[in-house]
Amino acid sequence: MKNTFGNAVSVTLFGESHGKEIGAVLDGLCPGIPVDEEELRFRLDLRRPFGRISTPRREADDFSIVSGVYEGKTTGTPLCILIPNRSARSADYDMLRSVARPGHADYAAFCKYHGYSDPRGGGHFSGRLTAPLVAAGAIAEKMLSSRGIKIGTHITRCAEIDDRDFDDLAADIAALNTKQFAVLDEESGEKMRERIEKAAEEGDSVGGVLETAVTGMPAGVGEPWFDSMESVLSHALFSIPGVKGVEFGDGFVMADMRGSEANDPFRVRDGKICTATNHNGGINGGITNGMPVIFRVAVKPTPSIFLKQDTVDFRKGKETELSLSGRHDPAIVHRARAVVDALTALTLADMLTVRYGTDWWTQ
Amino acid sequence: MKNTFGNAVSVTLFGESHGKEIGAVLDGLCPGIPVDEEELRFRLDLRRPFGRISTPRREADDFSIVSGVYEGKTTGTPLCILIPNRSARSADYDMLRSVARPGHADYAAFCKYHGYSDPRGGGHFSGRLTAPLVAAGAIAEKMLSSRGIKIGTHITRCAEIDDRDFDDLAADIAALNTKQFAVLDEESGEKMRERIEKAAEEGDSVGGVLETAVTGMPAGVGEPWFDSMESVLSHALFSIPGVKGVEFGDGFVMADMRGSEANDPFRVRDGKICTATNHNGGINGGITNGMPVIFRVAVKPTPSIFLKQDTVDFRKGKETELSLSGRHDPAIVHRARAVVDALTALTLADMLTVRYGTDWWTQ
Amino acid sequence: MKNTFGNAVSVTLFGESHGKEIGAVLDGLCPGIPVDEEELRFRLDLRRPFGRISTPRREADDFSIVSGVYEGKTTGTPLCILIPNRSARSADYDMLRSVARPGHADYAAFCKYHGYSDPRGGGHFSGRLTAPLVAAGAIAEKMLSSRGIKIGTHITRCAEIDDRDFDDLAADIAALNTKQFAVLDEESGEKMRERIEKAAEEGDSVGGVLETAVTGMPAGVGEPWFDSMESVLSHALFSIPGVKGVEFGDGFVMADMRGSEANDPFRVRDGKICTATNHNGGINGGITNGMPVIFRVAVKPTPSIFLKQDTVDFRKGKETELSLSGRHDPAIVHRARAVVDALTALTLADMLTVRYGTDWWTQ
Amino acid sequence: MKNTFGNAVSVTLFGESHGKEIGAVLDGLCPGIPVDEEELRFRLDLRRPFGRISTPRREADDFSIVSGVYEGKTTGTPLCILIPNRSARSADYDMLRSVARPGHADYAAFCKYHGYSDPRGGGHFSGRLTAPLVAAGAIAEKMLSSRGIKIGTHITRCAEIDDRDFDDLAADIAALNTKQFAVLDEESGEKMRERIEKAAEEGDSVGGVLETAVTGMPAGVGEPWFDSMESVLSHALFSIPGVKGVEFGDGFVMADMRGSEANDPFRVRDGKICTATNHNGGINGGITNGMPVIFRVAVKPTPSIFLKQDTVDFRKGKETELSLSGRHDPAIVHRARAVVDALTALTLADMLTVRYGTDWWTQ
Repeated sequence: MKNTFGNAVSVTLFGESHGKEIGAVLDGLCPGIPVDEEELRFRLDLRRPFGRISTPRREADDFSIVSGVYEGKTTGTPLCILIPNRSARSADYDMLRSVARPGHADYAAFCKYHGYSDPRGGGHFSGRLTAPLVAAGAIAEKMLSSRGIKIGTHITRCAEIDDRDFDDLAADIAALNTKQFAVLDEESGEKMRERIEKAAEEGDSVGGVLETAVTGMPAGVGEPWFDSMESVLSHALFSIPGVKGVEFGDGFVMADMRGSEANDPFRVRDGKICTATNHNGGINGGITNGMPVIFRVAVKPTPSIFLKQDTVDFRKGKETELSLSGRHDPAIVHRARAVVDALTALTLADMLTVRYGTDWWTQ
Repeated sequence: MKNTFGNAVSVTLFGESHGKEIGAVLDGLCPGIPVDEEELRFRLDLRRPFGRISTPRREADDFSIVSGVYEGKTTGTPLCILIPNRSARSADYDMLRSVARPGHADYAAFCKYHGYSDPRGGGHFSGRLTAPLVAAGAIAEKMLSSRGIKIGTHITRCAEIDDRDFDDLAADIAALNTKQFAVLDEESGEKMRERIEKAAEEGDSVGGVLETAVTGMPAGVGEPWFDSMESVLSHALFSIPGVKGVEFGDGFVMADMRGSEANDPFRVRDGKICTATNHNGGINGGITNGMPVIFRVAVKPTPSIFLKQDTVDFRKGKETELSLSGRHDPAIVHRARAVVDALTALTLADMLTVRYGTDWWTQ
Repeated sequence: MKNTFGNAVSVTLFGESHGKEIGAVLDGLCPGIPVDEEELRFRLDLRRPFGRISTPRREADDFSIVSGVYEGKTTGTPLCILIPNRSARSADYDMLRSVARPGHADYAAFCKYHGYSDPRGGGHFSGRLTAPLVAAGAIAEKMLSSRGIKIGTHITRCAEIDDRDFDDLAADIAALNTKQFAVLDEESGEKMRERIEKAAEEGDSVGGVLETAVTGMPAGVGEPWFDSMESVLSHALFSIPGVKGVEFGDGFVMADMRGSEANDPFRVRDGKICTATNHNGGINGGITNGMPVIFRVAVKPTPSIFLKQDTVDFRKGKETELSLSGRHDPAIVHRARAVVDALTALTLADMLTVRYGTDWWTQ
Repeated sequence: MKNTFGNAVSVTLFGESHGKEIGAVLDGLCPGIPVDEEELRFRLDLRRPFGRISTPRREADDFSIVSGVYEGKTTGTPLCILIPNRSARSADYDMLRSVARPGHADYAAFCKYHGYSDPRGGGHFSGRLTAPLVAAGAIAEKMLSSRGIKIGTHITRCAEIDDRDFDDLAADIAALNTKQFAVLDEESGEKMRERIEKAAEEGDSVGGVLETAVTGMPAGVGEPWFDSMESVLSHALFSIPGVKGVEFGDGFVMADMRGSEANDPFRVRDGKICTATNHNGGINGGITNGMPVIFRVAVKPTPSIFLKQDTVDFRKGKETELSLSGRHDPAIVHRARAVVDALTALTLADMLTVRYGTDWWTQ
């Protein structure tokens, strides 16, 4: 469904980097959820560029909710969030009508859209479109949070520096949700930022890995086969520009384990069934088992770099060189974190609504 | 959509491990595609257990196509493939009504289905259901292959042994599609099998990583955002039991690269636009760029092991121990390979049909 | 989605009139619903041809449920119903490869499937495929019925003879569900059958109108706009071969009313909000209002007649004449009634599951 | 999918009658289609209220396209149309929080949304939301028209006055598309308007029937069973507020025909296969046969009338009386016509794109 995702709760995304407005339509939300614009603003700020580790393009992200909220609460009908583009500088992008930026969608989009797509700043492919996703996700996060479902994401690795592992999930998630550069260990974070700045100085960029934990998910959500929790979450996560890998629980490391190590023994604690370990990331057979849902997302280095690159003019079919100017992020992993949180919240809100009905939250 | 996947070409899966029949309905295929039952038989054989590295349950997989084929060719209307279960031994599974096998869906399914799901052999969660997927995929593979799109998957790692990397893709893919234990380097394969057998002797199991290459995909297929090629392929791949990670191109390794390394420079060769490297795995911005599509899938060790395990009786809410008997695979990665090929073929057939229309193949 | 319909509860249809098996996969049913094969048999019998008013092709409809039921109850996973074709006589249909039967899909299908579709007995277009729909619907009807939702359909008009109107809905629905030729007034029914027989003797066919009432639907089910109760029900109903009109409440007659006549005044009876009249057929703004859901379906006369007809050979692009032999129904309206009941039950089960969650019935 | 409709081309609708903005997101359009804002303006004007036969609420409908168009042409990515609400008067609607307007969704919506939906002017249920649908449809109509597919709708009946039948379709469609009150016979139109005005004077309202013809549709579009052309068109048409009946070809009249009358004999004219009559409305077995697609839509009288009505206060569960003030249409059939054209165009654009691929128009 192209730019619409979700079954019971769906999000439809529109806009281009340098168009008039970007936005999202969020449909199927339970009625009665409080919509706190401060909360949305806060989440959008977590995604905004800042310091020397981000693009100098600084959009105010003055969002406006034009439908679906009445007297401060969701109505249950579609909620549309609009964000105007103010700092558009189309002139920077004239060359992109015909010259492919390596690692970007320009050439692939040309093959798909026959040259009619908006080339300015990547057009509809731009990471800028994650802003309305983050705003939409903030509403879903609030909805989940008020029912005890908490989501937290940290930069577990960036520029070859590792953050510490999750420890006390409740405390770690709470802490992460106050941080713009989301690491559990501030010293590691400092080193990451230094390396991002260094890459920026060299006209280059870096990538990283995000790790997400979700606590409070009830057991029994998800489907065997095609709508497994892993399938649906990965579908959402791979829609984020720059994501090239997704793994659940111990992920690729499990491939080297034996069954006797990888299986999580069940036990009873405080009268509740849980597992002693969580190698499977809270999901068995595609369905939540009541343990924290854990996954990691690999984000490639930003493809927009200032170093000279070999490429082609795809309209002429000729090789050429490219030196990008303009405003670019030397890393997006710290900004992508807010998008991972948002898409996780939207996906879980959807799956919970499929499972428990269109007013499970309201009742 | 639970047990139905795909937009223009869809597959609907049904059945239980020890029910009467398992099967799949394949809808939206272009009309006129030759359906060669020998080809299906061959693909099903690639998935069948064999030797000491697989379960002793040996189903004949005598499939039957009961609709959608007329005079040896697809009609364009739904094609239903049925496979009877002959070697069912329900008695082995009585205990599973209430005792959760660690790493399996039993407890999660109990929470979801309130205890009504078929417990015998994992019921609808069983890997046995991949048989009709493989049969359905074989038809899609033939369809793609006749238009120059070739798919090959090897066991790139198993029990800590690595296979060699892809080299000459055309030759490697051709070779892989003749092998039941799909490795590029036979010596590595021999070591892998030894380790699987050793694990089996010890009542344990091993996992592995599969790597897939697809050549011949035209540029311009896939969507920005929610139906990105990565999103849709990962959605399909994570539906395979035991898959816990999916990465495209250099995947998680890209997280440690710099942009200058990760970007694939475009160039012109023989009048065709291509890239000098393929770190992005043939996909830019969610859309194919004409280069080979490359991805890897992490398969966890089979959760059915013969070692004694701690677990719970979930109906009683009490801790207990479990010693599995019955017939189990000490590894499924070599069998999962046929399923990866099948779901890849089905997904690409779908995306090509969305892109080029319902009779793109026929014309 | 071509041959799959429904969101939370979906049905996938496959098969051809003279293929090996026809069938349906019913997914998303709540777990724990008793599946009574006698009930399915009874519903299938309501749809079976009988007497001189139907085709002499008499299929036993020996259905088999091959998945999704365990110990007599739904598991919550896909339920596949198979019905073999036994009385196939392909020879009757050789000519249909190239000669279009007026009123049938032959020529349209040729344009769509490039001549690859199965021509025998209409192939996948055959009314024979309504048998698995009726079987699937019987399970959904049982599910609804046990929660107080009752569905009844009568032949309100056939061959220009009117049945009496609905009166006491509870009694009328109960009576209809025991009748093979579903009329409220037996005398009218007798006249209808006489006219059908007369048309049959003359080598011709007749049509009719079915009227359905659903009692017990809770208020608040359906959506504004695209998933209005009318939209989704009509989508299902127009998939029945031969249906050319659908209207809700007073339907086309409302076009001649004034607002003051057409509006149903609300009132309170026994502490419950209801309406004094039901011109709107139990639906306001696309959403049920708690009153009986009422609709009518126009069924055209069977296009298979024995009179000589002008037509074309579409492979040669030449005019020709057609004299059908074979086995045909002089009317299908009385058989279509079971299909209307079935699709109504499936659609309502879907909409209730969307509204109340995947185990609303089970809890 | 609630507020999103379509497979390859989809429309997502949002907004409330008295909210900030209403709008639609149109996704999946082929790239390169010229978007003429004058054309959209013209279509919106056809839907706007005028004279004494419509509501005195006169919105300017100053739409704005904020994405999906670049240099005057569609990009192939989502096109969002926004229309601000300027003439909102919320005060008129305070009572509607608890008092149900007969014939309206108020009570049903209360049951569904637990009282959180926006009550002002019907909120999301308001006919006002058809404005962005008309704007979106205008783009689709242009797309179809430039490929020879023409759509025209007339008020075939209103307040018991009949318009003349379609005659020369090309001329009739061309004429209709210039008229705000779309009748083929101006004298009949004059009488209809007189009767609407008379109903308005009496504080009452009238309904009517719209008839649509589509010429130029290629044969072979649509599906057997669930995505039959009738199923998908009726799904769209029944989403229009006030529509209570849809019929194709001769519709309900066919129920009284014999097969020998209802079957359309095929013949060859100018080397092209067509039918001598068109009782089936251009559709056989759910698939277009190349003849004009013909259907009729019954529109009930506007439920907003000024006469005193019996109703209930649904929050108190008590009977009460209602005397509406505010601004209302004494008929909507003449305005609904633009919506029928729009949804027809959107649905056909979708089905053509499913059939021929995502750039069928562009190539």
